[in-house]
Amino acid sequence: MSLTLTIIQDNTSDLATEVAKIKGDMGMLWMLLSAILVFFMQAGFTLVESGMTRSKNAVNIAMKNLLDICVGSLTYWMVGYSLMYGSTSNGWFFWSGLFQGEGADLLFQTMFAATAATIVSGAIAGRTKYSTYVIFSIIMTALIYPIAGGWQWQGEGWLTKMGFIDFAGSSIVHSVGGWAALVAAILVGPRIGKFVDGKVLPIPGHNQILATLGVFILWLGWFGFNGGSQLAWGGEDAIAASNVVLVTNLSAAAGGLGALITTWIWYGKPHLAQTLNGALAGLVSITAGCGNMTDGGAALAGLIGGVLVVFSIEFIEKKLKIDDAIGAASVHGVVGVWGTLVIGLWGVNGDKGIGLFNGGGFSQLGVQAVGAFAYALWAIVLAFVVLFTLKKTIGLRVSKEIEEKGLDLAEHGTIAYPGKRDRGE
Amino acid sequence: MSLTLTIIQDNTSDLATEVAKIKGDMGMLWMLLSAILVFFMQAGFTLVESGMTRSKNAVNIAMKNLLDICVGSLTYWMVGYSLMYGSTSNGWFFWSGLFQGEGADLLFQTMFAATAATIVSGAIAGRTKYSTYVIFSIIMTALIYPIAGGWQWQGEGWLTKMGFIDFAGSSIVHSVGGWAALVAAILVGPRIGKFVDGKVLPIPGHNQILATLGVFILWLGWFGFNGGSQLAWGGEDAIAASNVVLVTNLSAAAGGLGALITTWIWYGKPHLAQTLNGALAGLVSITAGCGNMTDGGAALAGLIGGVLVVFSIEFIEKKLKIDDAIGAASVHGVVGVWGTLVIGLWGVNGDKGIGLFNGGGFSQLGVQAVGAFAYALWAIVLAFVVLFTLKKTIGLRVSKEIEEKGLDLAEHGTIAYPGKRDRGE
Amino acid sequence: MSLTLTIIQDNTSDLATEVAKIKGDMGMLWMLLSAILVFFMQAGFTLVESGMTRSKNAVNIAMKNLLDICVGSLTYWMVGYSLMYGSTSNGWFFWSGLFQGEGADLLFQTMFAATAATIVSGAIAGRTKYSTYVIFSIIMTALIYPIAGGWQWQGEGWLTKMGFIDFAGSSIVHSVGGWAALVAAILVGPRIGKFVDGKVLPIPGHNQILATLGVFILWLGWFGFNGGSQLAWGGEDAIAASNVVLVTNLSAAAGGLGALITTWIWYGKPHLAQTLNGALAGLVSITAGCGNMTDGGAALAGLIGGVLVVFSIEFIEKKLKIDDAIGAASVHGVVGVWGTLVIGLWGVNGDKGIGLFNGGGFSQLGVQAVGAFAYALWAIVLAFVVLFTLKKTIGLRVSKEIEEKGLDLAEHGTIAYPGKRDRGE
Repeated sequence: MSLTLTIIQDNTSDLATEVAKIKGDMGMLWMLLSAILVFFMQAGFTLVESGMTRSKNAVNIAMKNLLDICVGSLTYWMVGYSLMYGSTSNGWFFWSGLFQGEGADLLFQTMFAATAATIVSGAIAGRTKYSTYVIFSIIMTALIYPIAGGWQWQGEGWLTKMGFIDFAGSSIVHSVGGWAALVAAILVGPRIGKFVDGKVLPIPGHNQILATLGVFILWLGWFGFNGGSQLAWGGEDAIAASNVVLVTNLSAAAGGLGALITTWIWYGKPHLAQTLNGALAGLVSITAGCGNMTDGGAALAGLIGGVLVVFSIEFIEKKLKIDDAIGAASVHGVVGVWGTLVIGLWGVNGDKGIGLFNGGGFSQLGVQAVGAFAYALWAIVLAFVVLFTLKKTIGLRVSKEIEEKGLDLAEHGTIAYPGKRDRGE
Repeated sequence: MSLTLTIIQDNTSDLATEVAKIKGDMGMLWMLLSAILVFFMQAGFTLVESGMTRSKNAVNIAMKNLLDICVGSLTYWMVGYSLMYGSTSNGWFFWSGLFQGEGADLLFQTMFAATAATIVSGAIAGRTKYSTYVIFSIIMTALIYPIAGGWQWQGEGWLTKMGFIDFAGSSIVHSVGGWAALVAAILVGPRIGKFVDGKVLPIPGHNQILATLGVFILWLGWFGFNGGSQLAWGGEDAIAASNVVLVTNLSAAAGGLGALITTWIWYGKPHLAQTLNGALAGLVSITAGCGNMTDGGAALAGLIGGVLVVFSIEFIEKKLKIDDAIGAASVHGVVGVWGTLVIGLWGVNGDKGIGLFNGGGFSQLGVQAVGAFAYALWAIVLAFVVLFTLKKTIGLRVSKEIEEKGLDLAEHGTIAYPGKRDRGE
Repeated sequence: MSLTLTIIQDNTSDLATEVAKIKGDMGMLWMLLSAILVFFMQAGFTLVESGMTRSKNAVNIAMKNLLDICVGSLTYWMVGYSLMYGSTSNGWFFWSGLFQGEGADLLFQTMFAATAATIVSGAIAGRTKYSTYVIFSIIMTALIYPIAGGWQWQGEGWLTKMGFIDFAGSSIVHSVGGWAALVAAILVGPRIGKFVDGKVLPIPGHNQILATLGVFILWLGWFGFNGGSQLAWGGEDAIAASNVVLVTNLSAAAGGLGALITTWIWYGKPHLAQTLNGALAGLVSITAGCGNMTDGGAALAGLIGGVLVVFSIEFIEKKLKIDDAIGAASVHGVVGVWGTLVIGLWGVNGDKGIGLFNGGGFSQLGVQAVGAFAYALWAIVLAFVVLFTLKKTIGLRVSKEIEEKGLDLAEHGTIAYPGKRDRGE
């Protein structure tokens, strides 16, 4: 009897390994593309902020947004990433040494840091010293945002352990930016001509089409902001990330419509700038919960966010008499809190309701409130300490003459739209 | 004799399963990214439409485009998807209940619905009531477009069964939008000052750079519009989708060049707005056939589309005396028909010619003509019924005073470009 | 004894084959998406060039950029690809017949050709005949760029064999475009009013916000320009391409900051247009070396590029008295050389230093210098021959009257921003 046996390797495990590697590669592609989309949001912020304010300060706004991405890319690479995702920790502060992070992951996280800084820029448009803003932008991207981010996104932070949910940063990015913007607007004071003899005067922006383009770009970039926060692609992750992008769009659409209808009823006419704010509010409303919302829940969250932002902007301007030039504190701060809380109202975890109104009780809502409060407190205290120090040292604000002439000429030696006369023709 | 046998599972089928899953994941990624690109086309339309019309109506155009994406995202999710892709059908109407569709697929299809609505917006710029447009936009995205789409894209529709080819919607999206735009332009009537004492006066747009940026954004988004319509990625699909994007670019380039040369000969100077229309015409020309064209066939289709659009715009304006403010009926309607028919002239199916000029006889051309005609008829009849009803009830058009002052101030209480005087400075 | 043996196919090789195919599919997806991003750079160039020059020539600039993508897409498809990647060769010229190239690869390469042409457009803004530019654009995309590209990117070219490194085209695309731009600026001569009585007068652009948006779009597109040049995705390639995009961003950020700080010190104020040029310089600085740089090396390369571009622009304008309207020769030419050389200074190859300052000696630096010199020589000679011939035949420059009135009206019969007066209202 002759017997030949061929030794055959069982490659079931090889297959599993290769499939896992490929999913890793797809996840990296999705994160890199998402990072690229989020990068583009800087252009959106530039257009929204400059379009919604006066032309004499447009160059200054462009310079602030450029600064945020330039400074943020460097500081977050140097120290920010390590402060946020470092391994040594007590649950509040993380650290792994300088220059940590790499590749698509570092790039994606970098863009979030730059976004947090940029939110502040618009609120204080038209009267803030550029040199002061430079220092603030460095501190924001290097310290304030990364430390706060670690509490939740490092995975071992105290908020994670408590069960807090903030998928893509309604609190971590937007409300941190928004509350800092509010503190900055209060400390720097209102623009000349905003509040005169007890009256609140409108200072409309100089180019609403650029502002509209800016919102479309932000909306576009937000698909990466929220969708990329899945941090993976393949199998369940592909379905989950697709759904994140879908609910992001539903919430944005409902937010835009909510503000449009609100202004139609309240002002008598559907109002462009508020509709734009409404769409942004819809996006902020779903940023925390985009992994924990049904389609209908997302649309409702956005709709309420879009209504809320109109009232919030009016309240901060008319009642609190704070001059937030583009409504950043409302869009990112107030609505950021709303987006954080709504998970506790009708959020889901897979098929399970975790919110107050779908059988989850008060538990998740309480945790969400703690997180929203913690981020607000952190942003307000830190922004206050930094900006108050700057105010008492180099100063926050340009002179009355410079403000009236416009920051562009005085601070940057140029204007946004030179015409024939400016060239002596 | 000692014999040890290891039982080895044959995992050939496991491998096939895993490969299929991964291809599914890649396809989902490609569709999601395509949906994101198509979303951005809304920004492109906003810029083209506002740039090519007067500044006093720019806010109104922004509000219409915002409305299309906000309303379209919600109505298509609620009923549109089900009407288009539902399972119960007689080949003409489909339905599966409310709130069907999910993830990347729903998002991708939603963006197409919003596009169809937006096409109408530009044609009737400068004199149409906003409230009327709101109703029209709802009906367009909820009913007119989805029902028409189902005939071909559901897979069991009557046009599919007949062998009709419209890969990405030259007819289904563009000519449906274009013919509706024509009907709307006729019913709402020309702008004051367009046709005076038998003369046709030009009303040039206020910002041709924004219009140019808009066309670049549309061109960009169209790569997703056509390429994403492959609905898959991996193996043959990856090659096919890449080729779709390639021929889309060739046709757009040839269309732009066709219009540039046509105007250089006809007007004596190469004309920007018509070159922009030519590039768009090149894109519409290849939208139906991008899966059934050789590179050369695509370039020729686009070239002819680019020439055609110039003559069509002149004809509709000068001979028919219809005031289509941005040439939407020509770019999307007339050229949409051209893009549908050209498959029957020199289309291919793999290596096989299916057009009249490459050995396919009249068969495909006949089917294409039936489809193009059916979509034209559907769009014209439905748009007429809806808009005529609106005209006889709430009215289509603003008053002469409002039109002259501009819709922005009267309809939205704001202007696009507030200057110093507008702020009382 | 009964023995049953089941024959089991060893599918280890099947698995390897399928994994390779899937990596191929992912690579194709990444290249296609990169091509789409690079396409968008045409919009960026349009905005930068028109924003940084006067409004009376903005339509002309839009027409030149549209021409570049339309003509480039067709000529590169017809002959360019074959001249660059053809198989028959002596190391200097390649050829495989007309209409070579296909799918994502052809599209990606096409966009590079269009970019090289577009770089020239801005330098000679405001006084160049459109008909002349048409001919130059055809020759650039069909001949000058593809032949030069083949030396390195075909794989069998003389520079490849020498060990030259230019990953994404600091020399091949940018310096070829930049040096051609310098020759063109010299041959066409300065704009009227630029150099008067020995004085150099500034001619500021008309819209710095559009220029800023343009730079953001270029920065965005550059992620595809550099990242897509990995030409693959999956495994090591995914990590490598992600890193390419990361160092691209670090270099851009450092370049923007370098120029911002330089102008703050030199001019006394941080200057927008130069900061924008600095960011672009940062991008050009890393384009050759993005596959051969550490994070820190990339940031340093960009920082120096951003400082360098400010001095270069001042030097060419003030000392050489050459009127390069947007600084294209500095941004793309001078910094293109810098980006090529820096690999020889502190470049790495994996873990191995290949530069002068990290243990690699002079070897790589020498090769980089040869390549940079060869591309400069080629571009300067070819551009001179073509443009000098055009100058002596149909002429390069419009008449004094046309230049003063603006090219838009005379060359294209339209203006960029028609207002009420232009419409006789």
